[in-house]
Amino acid sequence: MADKPEIGIGLVGAGFMGRCHANAFRAVSGLFDLPRRPVARLLADATPETAAASAAALGFARATGDWRTLVTDAEVDVVAVTAPNALHEPVVLAAIAGGKAVYCEKPLSTTAASARTMMQAAEAAGVPTLVGFNFLRNPMIRLARDIVAAGEIGRITGFRGRHAENYMADPDAPHSFRTDPAGGGAAADIGSHIVSLARHLVGPILRTSAACTTIHRTRPVHPGSAERAPVEVDDMTHALVTFEDGAAGSIEANWAATGRTMDLSFEITGTRGAVAFSQERMNELLLWSARPGRQGYTRIEAGPDHPPYGAFCPAPGHHLGFNDLKVIEVADLIRGIAGQGVLYPDFREALAVQETVEAMQRSSASGGWEDVLPP
Amino acid sequence: MADKPEIGIGLVGAGFMGRCHANAFRAVSGLFDLPRRPVARLLADATPETAAASAAALGFARATGDWRTLVTDAEVDVVAVTAPNALHEPVVLAAIAGGKAVYCEKPLSTTAASARTMMQAAEAAGVPTLVGFNFLRNPMIRLARDIVAAGEIGRITGFRGRHAENYMADPDAPHSFRTDPAGGGAAADIGSHIVSLARHLVGPILRTSAACTTIHRTRPVHPGSAERAPVEVDDMTHALVTFEDGAAGSIEANWAATGRTMDLSFEITGTRGAVAFSQERMNELLLWSARPGRQGYTRIEAGPDHPPYGAFCPAPGHHLGFNDLKVIEVADLIRGIAGQGVLYPDFREALAVQETVEAMQRSSASGGWEDVLPP
Amino acid sequence: MADKPEIGIGLVGAGFMGRCHANAFRAVSGLFDLPRRPVARLLADATPETAAASAAALGFARATGDWRTLVTDAEVDVVAVTAPNALHEPVVLAAIAGGKAVYCEKPLSTTAASARTMMQAAEAAGVPTLVGFNFLRNPMIRLARDIVAAGEIGRITGFRGRHAENYMADPDAPHSFRTDPAGGGAAADIGSHIVSLARHLVGPILRTSAACTTIHRTRPVHPGSAERAPVEVDDMTHALVTFEDGAAGSIEANWAATGRTMDLSFEITGTRGAVAFSQERMNELLLWSARPGRQGYTRIEAGPDHPPYGAFCPAPGHHLGFNDLKVIEVADLIRGIAGQGVLYPDFREALAVQETVEAMQRSSASGGWEDVLPP
Amino acid sequence: MADKPEIGIGLVGAGFMGRCHANAFRAVSGLFDLPRRPVARLLADATPETAAASAAALGFARATGDWRTLVTDAEVDVVAVTAPNALHEPVVLAAIAGGKAVYCEKPLSTTAASARTMMQAAEAAGVPTLVGFNFLRNPMIRLARDIVAAGEIGRITGFRGRHAENYMADPDAPHSFRTDPAGGGAAADIGSHIVSLARHLVGPILRTSAACTTIHRTRPVHPGSAERAPVEVDDMTHALVTFEDGAAGSIEANWAATGRTMDLSFEITGTRGAVAFSQERMNELLLWSARPGRQGYTRIEAGPDHPPYGAFCPAPGHHLGFNDLKVIEVADLIRGIAGQGVLYPDFREALAVQETVEAMQRSSASGGWEDVLPP
Repeated sequence: MADKPEIGIGLVGAGFMGRCHANAFRAVSGLFDLPRRPVARLLADATPETAAASAAALGFARATGDWRTLVTDAEVDVVAVTAPNALHEPVVLAAIAGGKAVYCEKPLSTTAASARTMMQAAEAAGVPTLVGFNFLRNPMIRLARDIVAAGEIGRITGFRGRHAENYMADPDAPHSFRTDPAGGGAAADIGSHIVSLARHLVGPILRTSAACTTIHRTRPVHPGSAERAPVEVDDMTHALVTFEDGAAGSIEANWAATGRTMDLSFEITGTRGAVAFSQERMNELLLWSARPGRQGYTRIEAGPDHPPYGAFCPAPGHHLGFNDLKVIEVADLIRGIAGQGVLYPDFREALAVQETVEAMQRSSASGGWEDVLPP
Repeated sequence: MADKPEIGIGLVGAGFMGRCHANAFRAVSGLFDLPRRPVARLLADATPETAAASAAALGFARATGDWRTLVTDAEVDVVAVTAPNALHEPVVLAAIAGGKAVYCEKPLSTTAASARTMMQAAEAAGVPTLVGFNFLRNPMIRLARDIVAAGEIGRITGFRGRHAENYMADPDAPHSFRTDPAGGGAAADIGSHIVSLARHLVGPILRTSAACTTIHRTRPVHPGSAERAPVEVDDMTHALVTFEDGAAGSIEANWAATGRTMDLSFEITGTRGAVAFSQERMNELLLWSARPGRQGYTRIEAGPDHPPYGAFCPAPGHHLGFNDLKVIEVADLIRGIAGQGVLYPDFREALAVQETVEAMQRSSASGGWEDVLPP
Repeated sequence: MADKPEIGIGLVGAGFMGRCHANAFRAVSGLFDLPRRPVARLLADATPETAAASAAALGFARATGDWRTLVTDAEVDVVAVTAPNALHEPVVLAAIAGGKAVYCEKPLSTTAASARTMMQAAEAAGVPTLVGFNFLRNPMIRLARDIVAAGEIGRITGFRGRHAENYMADPDAPHSFRTDPAGGGAAADIGSHIVSLARHLVGPILRTSAACTTIHRTRPVHPGSAERAPVEVDDMTHALVTFEDGAAGSIEANWAATGRTMDLSFEITGTRGAVAFSQERMNELLLWSARPGRQGYTRIEAGPDHPPYGAFCPAPGHHLGFNDLKVIEVADLIRGIAGQGVLYPDFREALAVQETVEAMQRSSASGGWEDVLPP
Repeated sequence: MADKPEIGIGLVGAGFMGRCHANAFRAVSGLFDLPRRPVARLLADATPETAAASAAALGFARATGDWRTLVTDAEVDVVAVTAPNALHEPVVLAAIAGGKAVYCEKPLSTTAASARTMMQAAEAAGVPTLVGFNFLRNPMIRLARDIVAAGEIGRITGFRGRHAENYMADPDAPHSFRTDPAGGGAAADIGSHIVSLARHLVGPILRTSAACTTIHRTRPVHPGSAERAPVEVDDMTHALVTFEDGAAGSIEANWAATGRTMDLSFEITGTRGAVAFSQERMNELLLWSARPGRQGYTRIEAGPDHPPYGAFCPAPGHHLGFNDLKVIEVADLIRGIAGQGVLYPDFREALAVQETVEAMQRSSASGGWEDVLPP
């Protein structure tokens, strides 16, 4: 693709995340100066009708009811996968077979075995991959990583992380793909976000002791149904973790956290400082300052000092939003495919996240500490 | 335009706000279900070359170095004005003369006289108008207005508002259009935002006693220049205000507020409750709850309960950003032009804001209370 | 008194503030290493019976129903005045005539004329005086003052202060001494606190333009009474102020601020930084830090680095409370009387505060700016 | 003692906590209406000289260099123990043998075995006991407990607790009693506070899986010494916990938490709401409110609605401090001894806390879940 000014996008799936991808591809060229211009070429959805309607709304040139035609389409360079989790593996493997770059929504898979299959296929084929852990794209997370990596807060000793939301807090929230025992549960669904952040900021997690708890033991089989079926997945998982570099701490994933809508948060403690963050205030990073008599947490507000904030606004304090993170991700995708910078998190990293989640699940079953299998 | 599925956009100016408009027009159809689809038809900038480059980056079909051809172009239905303030009046009047709907960045003008000329021309011609006070579009501001309008916090007694930033805090920040005595100063530049919010939430301001203060009495004539020239505009303005409905309070505009990047904030006190907000945490609204023994400010997080948040994300707590406010504004523009809903703030409202600012400036000169002239 | 190890305390008044004084005198020797030991010698209250009961509860050796005997009692060295405001002048003047040091609760008086009489009598007699503006004693306020005085935030340009509470927000809150036209009103009652802080931190206020507003125009004549009488004092006052050193800003006093219980707060802006504080979080001071890429407000927590916090607790973060401020005040009183350090705020300073409040009231009546009369 | 108006206090130890006790006993009668009046009768410290000096400063009538005489002194009704941890058991057992009520600082002991010995002796002798977990006395904690106990937030599902401070974060912080392997470590020293709160609010902890981590493996043998010795206790402990009533969660104790001075904090999640608290803002409780469209955490400020706040101040928002909590504890002690109310936490509860801490330590050693032994 090195000599092409355009890069053709094929989108599989047109739900909320599909729309989010489409809007990001449309917006990115107006905000970032990129080596390629993404062009919305082909959209696949469950039926030709829904695909056509979504293509029209989202600005895609063509539509199809069969994703199998998309992954071999000559005009498609990148396959963006926002289909239901259960479809990730077949779509991704077919796209890899088609020689396409693959940009897959998280989780890459709900099982490590499946993620490993995809990772190995992609690495064997040499196709670029990226997985949509978009919270990593926040300029404040980038700042946190820079601070940690530069040793600004000393050696890291402790990590306290959490992803807590309340969307399954209601005992009458029904069964869905989320509660499918094949891979659902809070640990997998949102635990992957905080594990991904922990790895990004502090490094690999080696061992874990975890407890997966099912708060609501039955749920309606369908929305509004009086019939209830047992729940086999966790509503919340609490885990002790030890990192490769010696830090220790805890991670919580909780989708029944009444009162929390987006507490994807952490505090990282070092020997000389600390940083703290919550997605609830995604435009702020707390950095502890040790100046004598003036010690305290400094609330750093996002601004042009914190790339790539300046691509969105030249003035500090004006705030990025959730959808902007996806635009940053897409910019990184385009650059990575064009050979500018490393694509991260790729399939191998996504597998490492999934292995960490599965070690937590194994630990809960065994009652002891479990090693995280290497990706 | 009622029978046209598309609505042609002509954009005058391609600086930061021009880009912000362009991105909003591109994104809006993917996020909102609108009666018309905006199409980026023609972009005018200072020269044909810069116009062409911006048109390519921002997805406009054609470009011109002369805005006079844009305002009469047959394919243009809406003229979006993001040119420098000094150009607002000629562009706007020409667009009105061309029968176009006019969507003008704030401030409509730096003087009430000029704003009145434009308002009268638009009303005489019957063209739709909208002015880009985009902070009003925040779902949390809409919620605050609903709470106040419904009497949920009782009769409004007090208003404490402020727009404080730090971009002119440095005594070596140079002269620019901002310090032009014809209309610059903090009161006009950012005071208009908090006045606009005050009017939107509490109603017309009738009288004011104000003090305009110039902190740095000289500034470099150009960036980095050793030559300094006197400053004739205010760096900060503090005003006492009384509202039509009897409430009283204070307003501050300050562009030399060291440490503040976007403190567009208010506290509205009613006889039975209060609401408070700061743009620094634009996804939150504080609402005082009077429940006995449980009294306190409730921090409401933005979510799908607060329209039009749901157009951006189906889950609460995920945050809108600054650029999203412009998308909401553009959606309201398209709907208003199509006859769905009232266009607000229109030129008349923008004039009322400007008259309020000028009453503050007059009061500072006279040393007494001044009436705000009706729009 | 220089050769006496003990210092005899006579307390006039045994309401909430009298009890607060008594407890402070009892606690202070256990917390501070002082040159004199205060001894609770004599307590005066409205009747011999209530005085005797309070003396027993509060640890005073003797009691009297007549304050006139207290101010001449040989065992009394310091007269602490916590009687109703209307009694301040006669008690204080008699105590001065008796040669006693006088420690008077704020406000020294509800009129500048009366405060001036007391100030002149005290200075003529050469007796030590202290007025109980106890919020000034907070270690965080002392830190703020040190920061400002050392030029750490540059030249001060702006002050935004407020004292807002809600204790008169209810329209059925009845008339009391607070609404007595002789000196009541929010400006006098709590405005004096924020004026006192403003003077302490930024210096004398020279001029003001203010608006005093009566929100509830009638109130019950007694608690629960159906009969209502007009209110002649303000419920809230908003004032523009200019300081001797050139700073400008605003001050609000509001006792009908629904939702606020103790918003005695300020933000002081300098050319190189800023500090912000609210009594609602009295153990914190916000200090803006300008470190590039790490700019933001640092939340400094009170600790032993901030004298005299360490007298109460050797560990940071453990918090002082409201009553502790009175203990610090009493420690300063004992030291000042013993010749260690300056007694501040003395009667002259309390007069200056009252003159500032009265200039606000005059301005509200005249509609123009008013000079503050010198103390 | 039922017919005595006074209650004689004997204090063992005159360090920071001894002074804190003494001040609380002096202040309590002026703030609370109690059935007995505590009188400071006898103070024991390491030597007759230091005891005499402290007795004078703290208002005790007599002094002794031998605590053995204090525990049998006829004028002493309550023995308050603030001596070093290693002395708790002999002093307490002697006081019990002397038939005294015993009021012991936390931790009752650094081992469960010793705590059990004291508990059994006290219960056999029938003497009243109280242990100084003073953070439980906070009106905001009382409010949290009332909210949980009343079912106001539904069935409790999750607990996330922490006590993090930074006083041992410095690798050159020397060895002391804190690092004595006989009972030191962060889990015992401050973990006991958060375990005590967890039990108070959510109930007994049945099982735990924990990791005790030593961050700094050697420390100076004395302050400033170049010689270092190995550290055998934990700097931080992370624990998974399950409660008797089915809730699950995590607890962290960390004395090397750079940037934290007093993060004794928790979030308790229920099926219908949640409460959150941090000692860093000890006058606030966050309570989640589920009102549709107005959902959010309400920041409740302490006030007279929250007993016994009103004993300190009649107005809300004025704040209690750390030392006030000890006054409340002493009031509860006097009432409990007089038969008004239950003494809590007594020795049995303190033993239960210690057993919970020891189960965490056992789990860290065994690598598996451990049951908490019943008290």
